[in-house]
Amino acid sequence: MQMKSEKSLAERDIETIWHPFTQHYIVKNHIVIEKAKGVYLYTEDGRAIIDAISSWWVNLYGHSNPIIADAICKQAHHLEHVIFADFTHKPAIELSEKLLSILPSNQSKVFFSDNGSTAVEVGLKIMLQFWYNQNQPKTKLIAIEGSYHGDTFGAMAVGDRNAFSAPFDKLLFDVDFIPFPNGENDALVLEKFQEIVKKGDVAGFIFEPLLQGTAGMRTYSASTLDNLIEIAHQNNVLCFADEVMTGFGRTGKHFASLYLKNKPDLFSLSKGITGGFLPLGVTTVSEEIFNAFLAEDKMKTFFHGHSYTANPISCAAAIASFSLLVSDEIQEKIKIIAEQNIQFLEEIKYDESIHKINQIGTIFSIELKQTESTSYFHSIRDQIYQLALEKNILLRPLGNVIYIIPPYIITKDELHEIYAVIKMILKKIK
Amino acid sequence: MQMKSEKSLAERDIETIWHPFTQHYIVKNHIVIEKAKGVYLYTEDGRAIIDAISSWWVNLYGHSNPIIADAICKQAHHLEHVIFADFTHKPAIELSEKLLSILPSNQSKVFFSDNGSTAVEVGLKIMLQFWYNQNQPKTKLIAIEGSYHGDTFGAMAVGDRNAFSAPFDKLLFDVDFIPFPNGENDALVLEKFQEIVKKGDVAGFIFEPLLQGTAGMRTYSASTLDNLIEIAHQNNVLCFADEVMTGFGRTGKHFASLYLKNKPDLFSLSKGITGGFLPLGVTTVSEEIFNAFLAEDKMKTFFHGHSYTANPISCAAAIASFSLLVSDEIQEKIKIIAEQNIQFLEEIKYDESIHKINQIGTIFSIELKQTESTSYFHSIRDQIYQLALEKNILLRPLGNVIYIIPPYIITKDELHEIYAVIKMILKKIK
Repeated sequence: MQMKSEKSLAERDIETIWHPFTQHYIVKNHIVIEKAKGVYLYTEDGRAIIDAISSWWVNLYGHSNPIIADAICKQAHHLEHVIFADFTHKPAIELSEKLLSILPSNQSKVFFSDNGSTAVEVGLKIMLQFWYNQNQPKTKLIAIEGSYHGDTFGAMAVGDRNAFSAPFDKLLFDVDFIPFPNGENDALVLEKFQEIVKKGDVAGFIFEPLLQGTAGMRTYSASTLDNLIEIAHQNNVLCFADEVMTGFGRTGKHFASLYLKNKPDLFSLSKGITGGFLPLGVTTVSEEIFNAFLAEDKMKTFFHGHSYTANPISCAAAIASFSLLVSDEIQEKIKIIAEQNIQFLEEIKYDESIHKINQIGTIFSIELKQTESTSYFHSIRDQIYQLALEKNILLRPLGNVIYIIPPYIITKDELHEIYAVIKMILKKIK
Repeated sequence: MQMKSEKSLAERDIETIWHPFTQHYIVKNHIVIEKAKGVYLYTEDGRAIIDAISSWWVNLYGHSNPIIADAICKQAHHLEHVIFADFTHKPAIELSEKLLSILPSNQSKVFFSDNGSTAVEVGLKIMLQFWYNQNQPKTKLIAIEGSYHGDTFGAMAVGDRNAFSAPFDKLLFDVDFIPFPNGENDALVLEKFQEIVKKGDVAGFIFEPLLQGTAGMRTYSASTLDNLIEIAHQNNVLCFADEVMTGFGRTGKHFASLYLKNKPDLFSLSKGITGGFLPLGVTTVSEEIFNAFLAEDKMKTFFHGHSYTANPISCAAAIASFSLLVSDEIQEKIKIIAEQNIQFLEEIKYDESIHKINQIGTIFSIELKQTESTSYFHSIRDQIYQLALEKNILLRPLGNVIYIIPPYIITKDELHEIYAVIKMILKKIK
């Protein structure tokens, strides 16, 4: 009889855990990470892997960053949590002030939840109840084709309907999708949008500003988005910027929406908000939205909350992260990553395997041509993933799109290590 | 001009934060908690308030418990987070093993998410895709009237439709509700349930086992629930026990479902899982369910995940909490709280203000009679809340239901302080 303790961690993992987005019939061996520091993930067996995708785009200041870790420690021993209805605490207040200080000036109040999906659900519900409270119920929402806003039912409903959502499609509420503005069809997209909002039943419009992440890190025009927001506002449609992935410096500015002239009415933030340490989501709104919920009539209240809403430890991590974000050192590093990315783009842009390169701030993506040999994009995806991992780089292609979203503390040398591996891959898959 | 720094924290709170379940037109002053220790919340101005409801039912081993805080500290400096697809880590593996060791023996795999709502959404999606993957799509779900399973769209759909859900009702998918088995109607409830499942289109049945929380901490019969599960299984309907509030000793056993003869197929856990420190949710499933997702066909994968899935820091908090839960010391304390509650029940049960008392393990609730003077239950609720708070006890009545769900480390003396205040309230509201 084999003793439990004799089994490896990888074996024990496979006996007990169901991993996200994982076909366990195929993946039978998960890499055991023992510790992490800076850009490196250290495996149980001594490998050091560069986390070129910031562990699903959350890590900004390096793994196990001591400033954030210390803030967490201190808070856990002092005030770990308290109910957030009728009670409050300094970490939530300070964090709210700091977030509002860098968001567009129309943002006025912060509503807390636990992750990106819940931050989106909160925003969707607020948009719907905003009209309901004013006796002008509107239940239609608009989103952009290819969008991803999370995996709970409401967040799925405003996301692209595809093979992933198929088992649940019948239970998702109806949403109107406009085509992705790809630079060639933008006038048509605006026309389509105008047609939909003219009907007068649209509560809100949700979008990933400037860049769709899961759809393949594809960018679109700030001026087109500005036009969409303008049309929406002319037609009494609220605009909801989902900055879960684009927030906190990823695009070069604190938020992607800061590239716009027009101001969205709501924002959802998560991922980088705690520097990649702890789950936390927030939804921010304009004063006009908040005011629509103020009334003697208690039924106009926004009845939503999670047990750990505004958890002080997560807030403390986010405050420490904020101080790093706005520091000259990190702002300088964000600039350097963007510059390096642009140089790399120039270097490889004529590579014949490449269909398109997208670059904005610290985000860099390469869409490979779908040639005969790469048309089964799933197999090319797995091939690239493995090739990079063999070289101790964690890339995680989205189909035929290779992308880099590194922690900001990555050095030039480490970035060039990643570039070199990508160049090797481009050669190999030809 | 007033400087920002001159404002009080409470003033700064009201300028920046939108609190959960809060009508800000009425609530203009949130109590600022400076620190917390054991059962006490310490306000900025020096009050010590007994947290008789464990801050929304999450705190089990006392605020700022040093064992849990130290575990969080250590983990934050060592491995704060890593992507959980294709990668794994010891804290998640150990926690999964520990959870499975105390859950009913049919539970086989653990899927991680960030809170109770997401743990429920994961379970609902798994039940639906379980049938979809086997080419027997069923899209109907059954829940119990009065149920509460969370605030995201899927979780709301299986919850009671009431004034709170009204702004969103049109966007919630259809669910069949059976009446709450109140001890008098149980035969009828079983009949109704049988009728619904006979149709053959039901994917799953979700319930709060033995006790509905938000509906007013009302208990129902274990044998009726056993019968419901039996009928469900005879008709190929999956059974999903939402133990977000009942888990981790609250009802006297580790899980409420351990009072049952029949085994649910899925469980959702959150709240007490981290001892009240950090957001974490898990959904556990039987081997049969897990196997229905294994296939060469990648489309049978469960495509769900959150950025912070299986966050190592939250897992470390949960492992430390687990060691406390199963300790002789805490098990003894759970027994003592239950005994004290029973004594208190005996003491007050003939009070003429009381309609019904519910007691199970550490959970104690008093449903007040709806007399002429208490028929506006909102006002009586607010009155009780204030009366208790003036005595430095945090109670948070659900309408006309007063309840206690204390941290397990509460002393007899502290419990009796709470009982005394409740007796004072019962006298005062006559």
